[in-house]
Amino acid sequence: MTKRDLQQLISEMTLEEKAGLCSGLDFWNLKGVERLGIPSIMVTDGPHGLRKQQTGADHLGLFDSVPATCFPSAVGLASSWNKELIHQVGVALGEECQAEDVAVLLGPGANIKRSPLCGRNFEYFSEDPYLSSEMAANHINGVQSQGVGTSLKHFAANNQEHRRMSTDAVVDERTLREIYLASFENAVKKAQPWTVMCAYNKVNGDYASESKTLLTDVLRDEWGFEGFVVSDWGAVNERVDGLEAGLELEMPSNAGIGDNKIIEAVKSGQLSEEKLDLTVERILRIIFMAVDHKKENASYDQEAHHQLARKVASESMVLLKNEDRILPLKKEGTISIIGALAEKPRYQGGGSSHIKPTKLENIVEELKVSAGQDVNVQYAEGYQLDHDSIDERLIEEAKENAAKSDVAILFVGLPDRYESEGYDRTHLRIPENQRQIIEAVVEVQENTVIVLSNGAPIEMPWLEKVKGLLEGYLGGQAIGGAIADLLFGEVNPSGKLAETFPVQLSDNPSYLHFPGEGDNVEYKEGIFVGYRYYDTKKVEPLFPFGYGLSYTTFEYSNIVIDKKKIKDTETVTVHVNVENTGNVAGEEIVQLYVKDIESTVVRPEKELKGFEKVQLQPGEEKTVTFTLDKRSFAYYNVGLKDWHVESGEFEILIGKSSIEIVLSDQVTVESTTPIRKEVHRNTTVGDLLSNPILAPKAKPLIEELTKGSPLFDVAGGDQGEFSEMMEAMLGYMPLRALMNFSGGAFTEEKLAKVIDELNETQIVSL
Amino acid sequence: MTKRDLQQLISEMTLEEKAGLCSGLDFWNLKGVERLGIPSIMVTDGPHGLRKQQTGADHLGLFDSVPATCFPSAVGLASSWNKELIHQVGVALGEECQAEDVAVLLGPGANIKRSPLCGRNFEYFSEDPYLSSEMAANHINGVQSQGVGTSLKHFAANNQEHRRMSTDAVVDERTLREIYLASFENAVKKAQPWTVMCAYNKVNGDYASESKTLLTDVLRDEWGFEGFVVSDWGAVNERVDGLEAGLELEMPSNAGIGDNKIIEAVKSGQLSEEKLDLTVERILRIIFMAVDHKKENASYDQEAHHQLARKVASESMVLLKNEDRILPLKKEGTISIIGALAEKPRYQGGGSSHIKPTKLENIVEELKVSAGQDVNVQYAEGYQLDHDSIDERLIEEAKENAAKSDVAILFVGLPDRYESEGYDRTHLRIPENQRQIIEAVVEVQENTVIVLSNGAPIEMPWLEKVKGLLEGYLGGQAIGGAIADLLFGEVNPSGKLAETFPVQLSDNPSYLHFPGEGDNVEYKEGIFVGYRYYDTKKVEPLFPFGYGLSYTTFEYSNIVIDKKKIKDTETVTVHVNVENTGNVAGEEIVQLYVKDIESTVVRPEKELKGFEKVQLQPGEEKTVTFTLDKRSFAYYNVGLKDWHVESGEFEILIGKSSIEIVLSDQVTVESTTPIRKEVHRNTTVGDLLSNPILAPKAKPLIEELTKGSPLFDVAGGDQGEFSEMMEAMLGYMPLRALMNFSGGAFTEEKLAKVIDELNETQIVSL
Repeated sequence: MTKRDLQQLISEMTLEEKAGLCSGLDFWNLKGVERLGIPSIMVTDGPHGLRKQQTGADHLGLFDSVPATCFPSAVGLASSWNKELIHQVGVALGEECQAEDVAVLLGPGANIKRSPLCGRNFEYFSEDPYLSSEMAANHINGVQSQGVGTSLKHFAANNQEHRRMSTDAVVDERTLREIYLASFENAVKKAQPWTVMCAYNKVNGDYASESKTLLTDVLRDEWGFEGFVVSDWGAVNERVDGLEAGLELEMPSNAGIGDNKIIEAVKSGQLSEEKLDLTVERILRIIFMAVDHKKENASYDQEAHHQLARKVASESMVLLKNEDRILPLKKEGTISIIGALAEKPRYQGGGSSHIKPTKLENIVEELKVSAGQDVNVQYAEGYQLDHDSIDERLIEEAKENAAKSDVAILFVGLPDRYESEGYDRTHLRIPENQRQIIEAVVEVQENTVIVLSNGAPIEMPWLEKVKGLLEGYLGGQAIGGAIADLLFGEVNPSGKLAETFPVQLSDNPSYLHFPGEGDNVEYKEGIFVGYRYYDTKKVEPLFPFGYGLSYTTFEYSNIVIDKKKIKDTETVTVHVNVENTGNVAGEEIVQLYVKDIESTVVRPEKELKGFEKVQLQPGEEKTVTFTLDKRSFAYYNVGLKDWHVESGEFEILIGKSSIEIVLSDQVTVESTTPIRKEVHRNTTVGDLLSNPILAPKAKPLIEELTKGSPLFDVAGGDQGEFSEMMEAMLGYMPLRALMNFSGGAFTEEKLAKVIDELNETQIVSL
Repeated sequence: MTKRDLQQLISEMTLEEKAGLCSGLDFWNLKGVERLGIPSIMVTDGPHGLRKQQTGADHLGLFDSVPATCFPSAVGLASSWNKELIHQVGVALGEECQAEDVAVLLGPGANIKRSPLCGRNFEYFSEDPYLSSEMAANHINGVQSQGVGTSLKHFAANNQEHRRMSTDAVVDERTLREIYLASFENAVKKAQPWTVMCAYNKVNGDYASESKTLLTDVLRDEWGFEGFVVSDWGAVNERVDGLEAGLELEMPSNAGIGDNKIIEAVKSGQLSEEKLDLTVERILRIIFMAVDHKKENASYDQEAHHQLARKVASESMVLLKNEDRILPLKKEGTISIIGALAEKPRYQGGGSSHIKPTKLENIVEELKVSAGQDVNVQYAEGYQLDHDSIDERLIEEAKENAAKSDVAILFVGLPDRYESEGYDRTHLRIPENQRQIIEAVVEVQENTVIVLSNGAPIEMPWLEKVKGLLEGYLGGQAIGGAIADLLFGEVNPSGKLAETFPVQLSDNPSYLHFPGEGDNVEYKEGIFVGYRYYDTKKVEPLFPFGYGLSYTTFEYSNIVIDKKKIKDTETVTVHVNVENTGNVAGEEIVQLYVKDIESTVVRPEKELKGFEKVQLQPGEEKTVTFTLDKRSFAYYNVGLKDWHVESGEFEILIGKSSIEIVLSDQVTVESTTPIRKEVHRNTTVGDLLSNPILAPKAKPLIEELTKGSPLFDVAGGDQGEFSEMMEAMLGYMPLRALMNFSGGAFTEEKLAKVIDELNETQIVSL
């Protein structure tokens, strides 16, 4: 349907029909207008799987949904750092939506992990906006390649569950741009999601649902978003204000209340009908996109999707410790499996993303299958999953098993009640009964491997006592097979952390300011989120961003940058060789960070600006190529209201993780955006004399007007031990203060003249 | 002269004379009006000694001043934690001013040590506003008891030298009140300084010299300041704006430029003559106070002041390490003294506070005297003081000496060029040649003691390798004797740190935001300055705030709080016993910290609210008493614009340092200031149900209006593993969002009615 047709259609709609189209019919369906052939389309939750409610419109009910493939949660998907793989997941999700007649899948989530405490972190990708937005873009492109829409959420600065519907996220503009918005920006530009979902919270005083800055100025006008904005469920405060700001669709149904407000606003002239028409047009455009792309009688291959889920899960898990090469496990002797989480796996998070899997692998069973006939596999519960109390009987049983075994595999993590949409954690501990079982087992078994099920970092006071540690995250329905594949070496671990694990909660940059006071949360740590903070503040993490082990080894060599110097309008290409120097095939995630060596603005120690996952057979070497552009070197300049590169040298760092930098080289970038600084009465002498354009003119002027000043007599003479001080004092002195030290020779009139002359010089020079 | 007389005098002054009185005659003198008998009075620099220039009016010249007693710098004075002693120093300074015909001494400085890098930290007392303001108040009271004025400086938020004349300190209101202003507040209220000196910098957008908020609203109206405000030298931007804001005196002379601006402003009606008269009256009041208190033919006892300087110096130094009881030194064998700083002591800081001492003790000589006949004292230069280059010959000589000795005393620290008024440090290192000499000496001599000369913390990568460490700070002219007294045990060390020593610079809370970008420095660490940060963030310092060793031991016992529960209008008394359990007499600094156990606003782990220094003979026990009032428990509430105590339990902690808490007890404080929270459409259900006043009314209302809501059906039923989530969702839900989930039963009209009823309930209840 062409644009002309939509406008024709709108012209045939009544005011009531138009207002009605701007809110849901019920919980999951948009309204249609039957007489005009506008269908009602369905949207459903689920970035890592489809949650289509069976029970119809007016029920939030979290449990009864149609079976769908449960892929690993976003935290795991991001840990794969595999853009193609997440694209494949998107394709599979799109196929399932087509099969279930779902027009728009409500995901992915691109919020930044500001604190490990956020209850919904498992649904988000990373603490880094570049990695997060790349993952989101590939997820969206995958889903949308199947003619199904996505809803990039929750826009923006929804970084906690605590008071999420009323809290005001106070974030300075540069931080918002470089961290929190950047995570959405690239995804919008690269993948053009059909819809964007606005957040519940306020951002700098405005509800996200009423922020013209976010919804119109940035999202639509700057980034070129073409779809419609939908409210998070219940996020609308004042319906008309929201519509004015750029919120097209309110969900769920407002029972007519919001619709009537729109109607009244148009009638009273408060809201222009043109604005409403534009809103309706944007919604209709997506409705008909869904219609046009609808595949009739679509179905999908459940088993193929399950196998994909298994592959994805094994790439989503991160090997964090492997002392004495305890992994992969040998297929011999006795293996003790301990922990209720092995029998009742936690494979997805709680809340709106919770789905009903098509099947669910049992970890113990899968381990037995992989172990084969020659291994004696024992299982002990170890602790009860649904509470924290210690059961001595279970501990004794587990210890007995462990003592008699060659190795113990301990499954611990966060139960659902610890971590969910809706609330945040307040600490990083696992339940006390789980901690106790670790302490008990390591007492009797030195070959202990921990497998974690959790959606976000935990503290690990027991880390030194175990030999192996696999971060399993929330692995989806194929969790069992994936863990078995990794532990027995059928698959070589290739995930790396998309977030920093702190030693203790207080190490986190947001610690002092999370979750805020009342309905106010100030992001005082600014741009120093995640590794940007740990690196710059030199705080040693438990495990750094980008970290993960493999069963093989990789060597890096031969970094080549194709240019030594570029303008910020040009790009530069970086090549680096990576070789598999071990005995098994493996995949390595090569990370490129950029460091601004010297800057007049505060910048993080380094920032991720590229990554590639490369598959290598033993002995094989490949060349990985990165292309860097202006944005790779830029910070957001709030004065310019634009990204800006400060001319100078930048270090290009190739790392195995954010901490383990293995190669580096430099490139000089020259800005093509000169920044003119107005000279005024408080411009300092030092600033004038260090400005290459102004200095030639400023030096004689300053010398002349301070001639005979006793201050300058002193400053010009020999001050012995105080020469540094006099030099600094003079450098920091504003022009107007020279009047105090000139004995009357320097007047306001002279000052004004000097300022004019210097500003004139600048205009001529630039 | 009475107030009436002053007004008579003012009425006889011409506009020009009045304007003229508002700025200096020259660098150090105010103008007089001879025909009216208004004398010209003199002010001079120097919180730790008098710097009266000999060369007259129009010369900044830093060197030629009359001899005066050089006491330890403020950092040392504060480390004594001895209120009486600093009062005595004030008295001595006042005597010297009287003898030299100086009316006002330009000090003390009460700026908070935000970063250890600030070049002028040696002139400031502490990172803690309570300690700082107590020290400042006693200093002021001492000086002013002699009929000499002080100038409490630099008001306010002048916490760096970098771009100090142009930078804007952006500090949130609560932080300003609790940290940066609090350090001045108590001093103004307790000691009523004759003058206050405004800072160079801007504070939240206004030059301190033009800030009506600071100079009038806070300083004068709230705190009751009665003197006049003088500009830091050259701090005036626009003279008339400053005068309007509450800046009475501009210094130094403005060569008539500023005076003329005042005259023109009065003539044009921009400035009222009444305002000018009030300004003049405030200046005259102090001029005549000086006249009235002038002691003719005053003199002072130089030797007595020198002896006082020695006593003060020994209390100002802090024993930081004493492994194997290496100190006090035995008076036998061979002692190697190494380091140029022992021969050319750094005993005061650089800049405007630099004075010419009446005499200067040589450290090597004083150590020889104290050591006596039986000791062989050797000296080796070790390094050159005036540059950083390594001189192998000096190192070899020092090593030879050290190897042949029983103990080596190594003098290192910061040379003048590293630390001064006018510029900040950029790192915490000592010069490389000094670091090398430490490494060289500890290689050959295991009994090494380091004595530091520095005005602010340094990093100590060599700390583990030395047995003894004495922080000597900048000890004043009696530095030699004081060090000898302490090292040989003639005096028992009793100083404790008034600042935290970080392990590394990046541990400091301001690290990411110091010294700011261009002319903007944001205090993003907020109230978390000094130990407030290290404690709360659990960052282990090298040496904590309040830390210092003694040659004896102290035991604390029997904490008694006289009430279990108080209203915030009442006071509570805390007693604690301290006993000297060692063999020598000593002084202990007993510290009281308050911790708010639970708070809805972010608060530091604990805050210093009392301290006493107590002298104890071996075996002696004394009871130390503290009185706590509202302010001891309060935080600054920006909504109330007042100090506020949140009702609840507080822990009273008695510590030997901020980290070593030895006794604690609790007290309950009840607020007498109820805070009414307006109910509105975005008030959350949880807030209503947890509010004791609103809950009884809110519960049935919410139940009624959500009757039949499918959401509440779910929430009220059994959600199994998701019950925590549903409860949290409901709690965080704003009233207006209930409309989305009520199926139309809950309307805007009902919502408005509920809000009205609830607000009515609150009004009735409070």
